[in-house]
Amino acid sequence: MKAVRLNELGGPEKLHIETIPDPEPGAGEIAVKIHRAAYNRRDVFITQGLYPGIELPRTLGSDGAGVVAALGPGVDGPPVGTPVVIDPMIGWGGDPHVWSGQQSILGMPRDGTFAEYCVVPAINVHKKPAQLTDDEAAAIPLAGLTAYRALITRGRCTSADRVLITGIGGGVQTFALLFAKHIGARVVVTSSSDEKLERARAMGADITINYKTAENWSKEARAATGGGPSLVIDSAGGDTFAKCLNIALPGARIVTYGGTLGDAKVRMFDIFWKHLDIMGTSMGSPQDFAGMLALFETGLKPAVDEVVPMDEAAAAAERINKSEQFGKVVLAIS
Amino acid sequence: MKAVRLNELGGPEKLHIETIPDPEPGAGEIAVKIHRAAYNRRDVFITQGLYPGIELPRTLGSDGAGVVAALGPGVDGPPVGTPVVIDPMIGWGGDPHVWSGQQSILGMPRDGTFAEYCVVPAINVHKKPAQLTDDEAAAIPLAGLTAYRALITRGRCTSADRVLITGIGGGVQTFALLFAKHIGARVVVTSSSDEKLERARAMGADITINYKTAENWSKEARAATGGGPSLVIDSAGGDTFAKCLNIALPGARIVTYGGTLGDAKVRMFDIFWKHLDIMGTSMGSPQDFAGMLALFETGLKPAVDEVVPMDEAAAAAERINKSEQFGKVVLAIS
Repeated sequence: MKAVRLNELGGPEKLHIETIPDPEPGAGEIAVKIHRAAYNRRDVFITQGLYPGIELPRTLGSDGAGVVAALGPGVDGPPVGTPVVIDPMIGWGGDPHVWSGQQSILGMPRDGTFAEYCVVPAINVHKKPAQLTDDEAAAIPLAGLTAYRALITRGRCTSADRVLITGIGGGVQTFALLFAKHIGARVVVTSSSDEKLERARAMGADITINYKTAENWSKEARAATGGGPSLVIDSAGGDTFAKCLNIALPGARIVTYGGTLGDAKVRMFDIFWKHLDIMGTSMGSPQDFAGMLALFETGLKPAVDEVVPMDEAAAAAERINKSEQFGKVVLAIS
Repeated sequence: MKAVRLNELGGPEKLHIETIPDPEPGAGEIAVKIHRAAYNRRDVFITQGLYPGIELPRTLGSDGAGVVAALGPGVDGPPVGTPVVIDPMIGWGGDPHVWSGQQSILGMPRDGTFAEYCVVPAINVHKKPAQLTDDEAAAIPLAGLTAYRALITRGRCTSADRVLITGIGGGVQTFALLFAKHIGARVVVTSSSDEKLERARAMGADITINYKTAENWSKEARAATGGGPSLVIDSAGGDTFAKCLNIALPGARIVTYGGTLGDAKVRMFDIFWKHLDIMGTSMGSPQDFAGMLALFETGLKPAVDEVVPMDEAAAAAERINKSEQFGKVVLAIS
C-alpha cells in the first residue's frame, strides 16, 4: 500500500510517499481502508523531533475515516464495508477521569492514518455519523475529542457560560468554538490574525479580539464577557494562562490542554480567592469520543480548511507548521 | 462590656482591653455571650495592616463559642441560654460553589468575638456539638470550616486517598489532618519544625517530612505517598505549590487556600498531561459549616494548643505571629 512515511527527523519536508506491505489486523484489531486522513500539529512536531518516544521509520497520522477492510481474530463487527471513523486514543483504560499511563496516540509509536490501510484496536473503530462526508469525518477525531473533553466533560459548558477561547485557529480551539455555540454559550475568541477572527465570527463567535493589536486583550476579554469569563479554554499557557486566571469570574472553570508559551507564573490569590477550578486535560476517554460523535449526529459540521492530495502531504504539513490554517487540513488518501 | 480592641495598626502589641457599650442585636441578628474565642493568623495580619479593608477601632476575632444572650427582631430561636458556636463567614450567599462577592469575615470590618458579647446574623449561629467543651467549640469555626471545604467539599477526600498536607501546624492544616485521618486516608505532612511533626504524628499523620532538613522533600513526599499524592492541601503557594503539581499522581486534586510564599511558576505539562484538578478555596458556605459541625458530633476533637486569659490577648497573638503554636490558641473570655 501507499503510505506517508517519516524515515528521519528534519521537519515536514521529510514526509514522503512509500509503498510498504499492507498491515494485517491481529487479535482484537480492525483494518480500516482509509479514505481521508487529517493533520494535527502533533504530526508536525514529530517530524521536528519535538515529541517524546519517537520511533522511526513510521507512518504518521492520528485522524482517519474510511471503511472497515478486515476484522482480526475475535472481532465480530462492524461488517466489512461499514463507514467508520477512528478514535486515535489508544489504551486510555477503564477510568473516564484519567488515562491509564499505558496510553498512546495513533501515529506514533503505532503506525497511523496517512496510508491506504490502518490497523487499530476494535474498540477504537466507531461508525461514522451519517451526516458527515469522509472529509468531515476525518477532520474530527483528535481535535474534536480533545475539545469535547476540554469544553464539555471537564469544562461542563452550559448555555449560561461566557466562554473565552484563546488562540482560535488550530483544530481544538475551532472545535471548542463549534461545540460552545452549539450548546448556546456566549463565546469570545482571541487570535493574532484578523483573517482567523473573521472566520471565527462566521462560525458564530460573539466577540473577537486581536491580541497583537489590542491595547490590552485581557481587559477587553473581561469586558466582552461581562465581567470575566465563566469558562476558559486555553492551550497557550505562559502569561496568557496567568491573565486568564486574573480576569476569570469567581467560581470560573479554566481548562488547559497545552502550554505552547511555556510555564505560567500564576497568582495564588486569583485561584483561592475566586474559588477557581483549573482543570488539565489531554485527548479523551472512549466515553468522550462517543459523546463527541453523538454531537455530530445532530447535523453539526466541522471546519475544514482544505483537502489536499496525498502526494502534497509534506507541503500541507508545512502549512500547519506556519499556523496558516483555520480548522482542519484533510489528506485525500483513496 | 470588656473587649479586645485594636485602635491603631502596629502589630499584636496594639491589642488591648477596653470597656465598650454592649452591642444590641438588630433585625435578624443574635447576640451571643462569648465564653471562649480563638485566634487565627488573620487576626495577627490585621494588627499589622496586612489585610484589605481595615476599619479602626474594631474588636477582632472570628472564632467564638458561648450561649445565646438575646434575639433581635424577627428571630425566633434558638432560646436564650442555648450553647452555640458562630460561623464566621458573613454573607456567603446562595450558591454553595462560590461566595457572593458581598461576603466578609467576622472580626473585620464587623466587630468580632474577642469580647463578652458578639452580634451576628441569626443564620451564623449554630448549636454547639454536645461532645465539645467551650474551648474546643471556640477552636473550630474558621479553620475547621476552611479545612472542611478544602479537604472534603472541594478535595472530595476518601479513604482511598494519599493526602499531602504542606506546612502542618497552623489551624487549617491541623484540621485537614484531623478530618483526613477521620475519613481513613493515608496522610503525609511537612513542616520545618520537628516538634510540630511529632505532634502531627500523635494526631495520626502516617509520614512526616521536615522540609528544611530533608535532602529533597518533594521526592520524599512522592515516595511516601506511593508514587505521588492523589490529594494535596496547600496554602504555601510559590515553589511548594509548583512542586506539588510536579509530584501529584495523574488525576490528582490539588486544593489551595493561600499563598504565603507568593506566586507560583507552574509547569503547564504537569497540569494537562496528568489531567490534574486544581481547586481554589477560601472559608466555606453555610452548608460546609453545617457539614463540618456534623463531623464533631461523632466525637472528633480539635487540636487545642493552649487556653490563655483575656488579658494576655496581645502576648498570645505574638505567639501566633511567630508560628509557635500547633493547633488553636483559645482566649478565655467569660
